[in-house]
Amino acid sequence: MWRLEATGNRNMDHHFKPQTYHTTIGTRKPVLRVADGDRIVTTTVDARGSDHTGRKVAERPNPQTGPFFIEGANPGDTLVVCLERIRPNRSHGFTATTIAANVLEPGHGEVTADADRIDWTIDLESHAATLDLSDPKLAPLTVPLRPMLGCFGVAPPGGQAISCDTSGRYGGNMDYRGFVAGVTVYLPVFVEGALLYLGDGHAWQGDGEILGTGIEVSMDVEVTVRVIQGKTIGWPRGENDDEIFAIGNARPLDQAVQHATTAMLRWLQSEYGLEERAAHLLLGTFVEYDVGNVFDPAYTMVCKLPKRVLPAMIG
Amino acid sequence: MWRLEATGNRNMDHHFKPQTYHTTIGTRKPVLRVADGDRIVTTTVDARGSDHTGRKVAERPNPQTGPFFIEGANPGDTLVVCLERIRPNRSHGFTATTIAANVLEPGHGEVTADADRIDWTIDLESHAATLDLSDPKLAPLTVPLRPMLGCFGVAPPGGQAISCDTSGRYGGNMDYRGFVAGVTVYLPVFVEGALLYLGDGHAWQGDGEILGTGIEVSMDVEVTVRVIQGKTIGWPRGENDDEIFAIGNARPLDQAVQHATTAMLRWLQSEYGLEERAAHLLLGTFVEYDVGNVFDPAYTMVCKLPKRVLPAMIG
Amino acid sequence: MWRLEATGNRNMDHHFKPQTYHTTIGTRKPVLRVADGDRIVTTTVDARGSDHTGRKVAERPNPQTGPFFIEGANPGDTLVVCLERIRPNRSHGFTATTIAANVLEPGHGEVTADADRIDWTIDLESHAATLDLSDPKLAPLTVPLRPMLGCFGVAPPGGQAISCDTSGRYGGNMDYRGFVAGVTVYLPVFVEGALLYLGDGHAWQGDGEILGTGIEVSMDVEVTVRVIQGKTIGWPRGENDDEIFAIGNARPLDQAVQHATTAMLRWLQSEYGLEERAAHLLLGTFVEYDVGNVFDPAYTMVCKLPKRVLPAMIG
Amino acid sequence: MWRLEATGNRNMDHHFKPQTYHTTIGTRKPVLRVADGDRIVTTTVDARGSDHTGRKVAERPNPQTGPFFIEGANPGDTLVVCLERIRPNRSHGFTATTIAANVLEPGHGEVTADADRIDWTIDLESHAATLDLSDPKLAPLTVPLRPMLGCFGVAPPGGQAISCDTSGRYGGNMDYRGFVAGVTVYLPVFVEGALLYLGDGHAWQGDGEILGTGIEVSMDVEVTVRVIQGKTIGWPRGENDDEIFAIGNARPLDQAVQHATTAMLRWLQSEYGLEERAAHLLLGTFVEYDVGNVFDPAYTMVCKLPKRVLPAMIG
Repeated sequence: MWRLEATGNRNMDHHFKPQTYHTTIGTRKPVLRVADGDRIVTTTVDARGSDHTGRKVAERPNPQTGPFFIEGANPGDTLVVCLERIRPNRSHGFTATTIAANVLEPGHGEVTADADRIDWTIDLESHAATLDLSDPKLAPLTVPLRPMLGCFGVAPPGGQAISCDTSGRYGGNMDYRGFVAGVTVYLPVFVEGALLYLGDGHAWQGDGEILGTGIEVSMDVEVTVRVIQGKTIGWPRGENDDEIFAIGNARPLDQAVQHATTAMLRWLQSEYGLEERAAHLLLGTFVEYDVGNVFDPAYTMVCKLPKRVLPAMIG
Repeated sequence: MWRLEATGNRNMDHHFKPQTYHTTIGTRKPVLRVADGDRIVTTTVDARGSDHTGRKVAERPNPQTGPFFIEGANPGDTLVVCLERIRPNRSHGFTATTIAANVLEPGHGEVTADADRIDWTIDLESHAATLDLSDPKLAPLTVPLRPMLGCFGVAPPGGQAISCDTSGRYGGNMDYRGFVAGVTVYLPVFVEGALLYLGDGHAWQGDGEILGTGIEVSMDVEVTVRVIQGKTIGWPRGENDDEIFAIGNARPLDQAVQHATTAMLRWLQSEYGLEERAAHLLLGTFVEYDVGNVFDPAYTMVCKLPKRVLPAMIG
Repeated sequence: MWRLEATGNRNMDHHFKPQTYHTTIGTRKPVLRVADGDRIVTTTVDARGSDHTGRKVAERPNPQTGPFFIEGANPGDTLVVCLERIRPNRSHGFTATTIAANVLEPGHGEVTADADRIDWTIDLESHAATLDLSDPKLAPLTVPLRPMLGCFGVAPPGGQAISCDTSGRYGGNMDYRGFVAGVTVYLPVFVEGALLYLGDGHAWQGDGEILGTGIEVSMDVEVTVRVIQGKTIGWPRGENDDEIFAIGNARPLDQAVQHATTAMLRWLQSEYGLEERAAHLLLGTFVEYDVGNVFDPAYTMVCKLPKRVLPAMIG
Repeated sequence: MWRLEATGNRNMDHHFKPQTYHTTIGTRKPVLRVADGDRIVTTTVDARGSDHTGRKVAERPNPQTGPFFIEGANPGDTLVVCLERIRPNRSHGFTATTIAANVLEPGHGEVTADADRIDWTIDLESHAATLDLSDPKLAPLTVPLRPMLGCFGVAPPGGQAISCDTSGRYGGNMDYRGFVAGVTVYLPVFVEGALLYLGDGHAWQGDGEILGTGIEVSMDVEVTVRVIQGKTIGWPRGENDDEIFAIGNARPLDQAVQHATTAMLRWLQSEYGLEERAAHLLLGTFVEYDVGNVFDPAYTMVCKLPKRVLPAMIG
């Protein structure tokens, strides 16, 4: 989607070791300034603030590394974030053990206790995480690692600072299992420098994050950032090798569907040059939806199209 | 899931040619009585009532073939419907051309005109459907055939007769693209004989049925029906080679999530014998959600688990 | 709103004593045929089927008296139902004792037990109902009688028969405390004769029917019916001495708001002849909303305007 | 509800003339420190930032006067805000002219143009506002003044700064027409000093604020603030001469109902000492709901009880 122009980007690597973390995404003094095209090599702590040693160094919810100021990014631009590496940096992660009450029928769920958690063993060599419940009915649970970032984004507009337990047009706590290494993310820029935040790594997550957690773990993270000046988008977007996708964050989930679908429809018209009718038919025929979280104050819906059905981009 | 008991089922094939169709799913005189284990070989007309010749023989919406009375099925039982064959029986199908207003942001959608439709060419040899928009920007659309039933179910309880434009515990217009041949469906039985209806074939459908249609076409359909006496389920369920799934039908989509997730949780506890905590952890870790339609009065959400993570069934 | 034309209506009184009751609203053989302008004097049983003697004579939910065939009513017409008398005909009614789980935060509600109920004493002389909880903290509860019909309507279109636990364009279980004697109701006619049903009397009800009940009681009911031929409405409407109102029935409540507000907006344009901008401003300035039930499968929202702000009707 | 203790409160009047305004509610340097029991006499600008002279002095949305630091208020306490005077301080206000698209059925609404507005004449002597549409069908619109604050609240927890276009547990843009002079409001305190903000005055507003505006005007405002130390509440509450009420802010409106109803239920149990069953029955019998706005990102529902049915408070 994004086409690299030979702009002499410096492609500098910044190794950044965070000292502080933030539980809101907002406008504040950046921890680092990077250029368009640079790579940030850093770490994130887990959702409850523990680092690679297991030591608690930050508060809940979802403490973020950053913010990073990207030079040249201004309101109305688009920030491109290439997720290059997301790798657990310790050998244990945790999940909650109770499906959230808002995901179950009224009267059938319980409010999750704050201390509710169970630890998984993460093995980076076998690339798997395991949990032995010592349940005679159930073999130990084993999942392949599929490391992702649950919460990341840029400073929202209007001087807001929004809790890392929710999400919006600026990104935030979307908990979409598709945000793995290899994915390129597009975020609308609302403030000078964009102010990128990163956090809430999951070694694995089911759809919907219905436990209220993935396998929460601290991460080594590398991202390369780029700026598309003058290009304005309304909601986070992404692409992987096979798909493009648009994100909607809202409640109820119906509204998240509306945002994601409308964003994709506009994308087809503005960047692929489709007439309205062709855009409707193409999207209506090939659309696939993924569910991000259905746990947080705002739910997340992902509207996807396979790249193979897309026409050439215009411009 | 369902285990065939050697009950001397007759496995008779019934070739049934429908003369009338129904636009509600309810309790009425059956067109055919079949035994537990029998196969029904029949046809369905398209969503607007046209048959394999293209002739309009029934009214909208989603006219159904049936109902079929299954001997031995009584309220509180479960009806098993093995979808054995779903095959378009003509060479054209149609879709609407406009994404439904309720799927787009307020103020961005239009109410779909009743006559809105465009015809696709269905080629059973190449197993594909094509639509040439004659749009310079867009190559002709081509999809592989993936024939499914959009609307089917059993008579709901309490003497209700519910329009085929919506869905509920009894099935109905779920428009889930996973209802293809090879899938086994489980439906709660509310009336004597279950009274099975079949219709609304789609040669292909995107997630959400956001155009308000798949590629609507008449079908040759074969199903085998079985009864599990004394087993009561709350919502439609299914399984294919790789997954089991539970369906929730409601608005908003959040409520459909609640029904589907609660149904799956109960399934794990009642039939796989999991303790509550193990059931929560297994489901929360491996759950995947598919979106049925987000177009009809009731939306459809599908809660899935891969078979490979399931323990052995009990009993 | 409705203006009596001197059509020589017979104004015959029909005294009808029901023998059977129905728990769906649908098309079936009428129990009585009445003329445009006639009055029906009858009784209804309570929500669980007990009559004026307390004897259970019908099944749940909300068994209905009727249907009544109104001569001259045809699809596309409007049926006018003047609620002339709604009066408890026994000295006890009941409520459930637990607020419905869907009205409380997830994890804080309980599924109401089927047998959950408590009896109130109804005193027709003092026009009050009382309940003594024998709670040292709480004086006996006393409410003035405000008798209303919770569930009534006409046969829905397309051969549907819909459970009396829900509602739609045809009316149904709206549980709006505004449906008291003195109110004129307008219902869309979908089938020949309209087929009017009446039931689910409440001696008193709080907003939202959040217990899942009002004070449920059998009633003496008198209504006069009229037909406005050729006038088509989309949703139930009503008027009392001071207000006109439009009803929307759907979930979530947001969608009920949309239906009710859109219906009122059209009403202002089509019958009061307002231009679009004037209709928006008048409605936006003076609108009041009442909440019908937030308990049933479909919730009910009422969009009201005071009569004093309305222009003269056209035509 | 709130009972004055003879604490020697100073009851000092602070006349504060704002120089800056804020479009988020968050933690920032206060403009004034006041003591428990003091009165603040100040002004607010209208929703688009114009003051009593009509001059634009602040940005959208809903610029706030404050924040005021209340001495002695700490997280976990409750701030009492007595709305003593809310009075338009100029002779014109404005409304938008188009009902918001999210309040109308999909496909029937339009996105409101940013510049959409029309001016009303406000007459403080006759205590009325008028708008002449010069529409031959419609007499000039006239409403009695009913001045209220649409948006006010305290700093939310966790360092958040939330746009004045939405609302939450901290208050915010609730647009409830019940927030008039004479009402006592209770707000949860999340930060030291509470940090009270005031703004978005409406000379009049319909239910739901469905135009996206009331009659927007700058105001003279007087409030007295008090602190109830050690009393923790979950959501905003209020009382007037006749009623107590609890507020829920969320989407969909169903969720706002859940928050407001649960808050009221807890109130009855914790402060009126009712057992669970008595609390359910009292609330279920007498509850009334008012609709705040159904326009903003979070909708507002108000759960009310008449004071006459309440038992004595405990403690």
